[in-house]
Amino acid sequence: MNHPTLTVSLPAIVDNWQSLRNRTRSTCTAAVVKANAYGLGVAEVSTALARAGCDDFFVATLEEALTLRAALPNVRIYVFQGVLRGEEGAYLKHNLRPILNTPQAIEQWLDIQSNHNHAPSPIVHIDSGMQRLGLNPSHLDDTALREKIRATNPTHIMTHYACASDLHHAMNAAQRRIMQRIEQLLPTFPTCYANSAGHFLPHDYHGDMTRPGCALYGINPCDDSPATLMRPVVTLCAPILQVRDIDEVSTIGYSATAPVRPAMRTLTVGIGYADGIHRTASHHLSASLGGIPIPMLGRVTMDMLCFDVTHVPQRILEQHDSVILMDERQTVDDVARIYGTIGYEVLTSLGNRIQRIYH
Amino acid sequence: MNHPTLTVSLPAIVDNWQSLRNRTRSTCTAAVVKANAYGLGVAEVSTALARAGCDDFFVATLEEALTLRAALPNVRIYVFQGVLRGEEGAYLKHNLRPILNTPQAIEQWLDIQSNHNHAPSPIVHIDSGMQRLGLNPSHLDDTALREKIRATNPTHIMTHYACASDLHHAMNAAQRRIMQRIEQLLPTFPTCYANSAGHFLPHDYHGDMTRPGCALYGINPCDDSPATLMRPVVTLCAPILQVRDIDEVSTIGYSATAPVRPAMRTLTVGIGYADGIHRTASHHLSASLGGIPIPMLGRVTMDMLCFDVTHVPQRILEQHDSVILMDERQTVDDVARIYGTIGYEVLTSLGNRIQRIYH
Repeated sequence: MNHPTLTVSLPAIVDNWQSLRNRTRSTCTAAVVKANAYGLGVAEVSTALARAGCDDFFVATLEEALTLRAALPNVRIYVFQGVLRGEEGAYLKHNLRPILNTPQAIEQWLDIQSNHNHAPSPIVHIDSGMQRLGLNPSHLDDTALREKIRATNPTHIMTHYACASDLHHAMNAAQRRIMQRIEQLLPTFPTCYANSAGHFLPHDYHGDMTRPGCALYGINPCDDSPATLMRPVVTLCAPILQVRDIDEVSTIGYSATAPVRPAMRTLTVGIGYADGIHRTASHHLSASLGGIPIPMLGRVTMDMLCFDVTHVPQRILEQHDSVILMDERQTVDDVARIYGTIGYEVLTSLGNRIQRIYH
Repeated sequence: MNHPTLTVSLPAIVDNWQSLRNRTRSTCTAAVVKANAYGLGVAEVSTALARAGCDDFFVATLEEALTLRAALPNVRIYVFQGVLRGEEGAYLKHNLRPILNTPQAIEQWLDIQSNHNHAPSPIVHIDSGMQRLGLNPSHLDDTALREKIRATNPTHIMTHYACASDLHHAMNAAQRRIMQRIEQLLPTFPTCYANSAGHFLPHDYHGDMTRPGCALYGINPCDDSPATLMRPVVTLCAPILQVRDIDEVSTIGYSATAPVRPAMRTLTVGIGYADGIHRTASHHLSASLGGIPIPMLGRVTMDMLCFDVTHVPQRILEQHDSVILMDERQTVDDVARIYGTIGYEVLTSLGNRIQRIYH
């Protein structure tokens, strides 16, 4: 094995999707596959989910929608950014469903629908507390705008929870109250509320369609809660480039920050920050070799990491040509804590030189 | 502009290469273009440098070498990892020059050279203090190994400085002393020593060939030194997705960490940590709109960032469809300080959804 590899368990992703679907009374469980399915490969992940019965997919941008459409001609594809300038034709041609975030976007799509019989129905996005994309709730006080929304015949009214990863955060109930008022103003339209964490809020927080993302990929959607652990999905390996027997008092890596001494044995592997191993993990990210933890020595460099293997038996060293950086023992969430970030960023950071392998 | 874009000034890269070449008395100045030319695009960058007279290119892996060979059939390509298992044929077929890091690699390449007349000459890498890849200096005490090295007819004897970014670090002189001893053991072979920072060390630290990397791409190779500033190379822009007039006391973004209040105006742009904007920059990375700095509000999310534009005149807002995140005013090195890392990682983090544009 000469490349770093990310082995993706498609059955684990499907299991995670099914376990979330089983948690909710919603009629439909979609899948969020933006950012190349959080770095794991949008075509492979979406095809596996579609085979398991998932018909609804969310992406961030038109370009992502086109990539997904090429892999899956018949599923429903929703685009969070909505229709940006000059993109109308592509939405019509490829039967993509825009998420409408502004009064102007609603008017524009209504206009397109009146000129094109086959223009798909949109989702209308109400911002109930993210202040990021979507209509302000106060926009809905405008009767004329509500009429226009009705005229677009939206498949769903959507919102996005800002704090669902903390199931007890007061923001969740505040957002729910806002959406209850919207539901009275726009009755009859199905709703789409729960992200991954939202599946662990009470059922009336879910909406008619849920849209899990991170949890599909093995990330715990709720902060450090053992009750919401998902099945791990990825194994990240890096090839061993060289085993070194240290023969003098020295240091390892840039800026000479990690001392080494004779009789130590180190190992250099071919993965670095250009592959998405965050440089903040310098000195701190351990790997494993034949099940034996090996501590990092020195800084994360662009293409390489070094580890202390003094304690690893020669026999184990000879049996392996790679080390493991993430698996079910050191999960994506564990690595996120070492990086000082969240599992989502751990996955989306993984670079192009890492070969994706599926089973 | 609906995509985030990275505009790469190829003339600035060429200028940086020429200014480094002018600093050194070495006969040859190569270019390090590993990790897709630090994220900027290996084919475009290397072609521009080749047109300017650069004939020698360094990459990390065989795969990178093959990508570069497809763009430039006639340049010399050196591969830092050297020949890994099963790669011998590709090195011969595509005329790639391995960097030999171990006694075993030297024996293996010598064997290949004895069986293939056209096998290219290698570089032999001595590790004088990184403890990462390369021969230990003590290996060179072995006369038989020195004979084998001579028999491979290396184009260069190479080493890599661990601390050159600090020009006064004692490690630089220690590594130089080690290589002076090696030069006595292996006279007549040209040397290859200086990385970007190494160009600012005394001339005898450079070697006969230098191999700048980061400085080509506008990164200051020496820690915060104004004397070693390079010409900025990149401009990073992100499309404006929505302008929001805040109409109630609320918060912006995940976990409700950033307060907003009525009469504030915010702006949401389409770039996030999936594009390589580090989540550690949450709350802290400012952008600019029509030359006016705009502070970030809330956390970096996967696909979006939010900014405070309350102070930006309506006229300026109407004139622009994107914001600037990096340019000559907020350089790669400035952004690195906000992330808590180095400019190299800022560039190699930039993701696939960002369109590269060249001039």
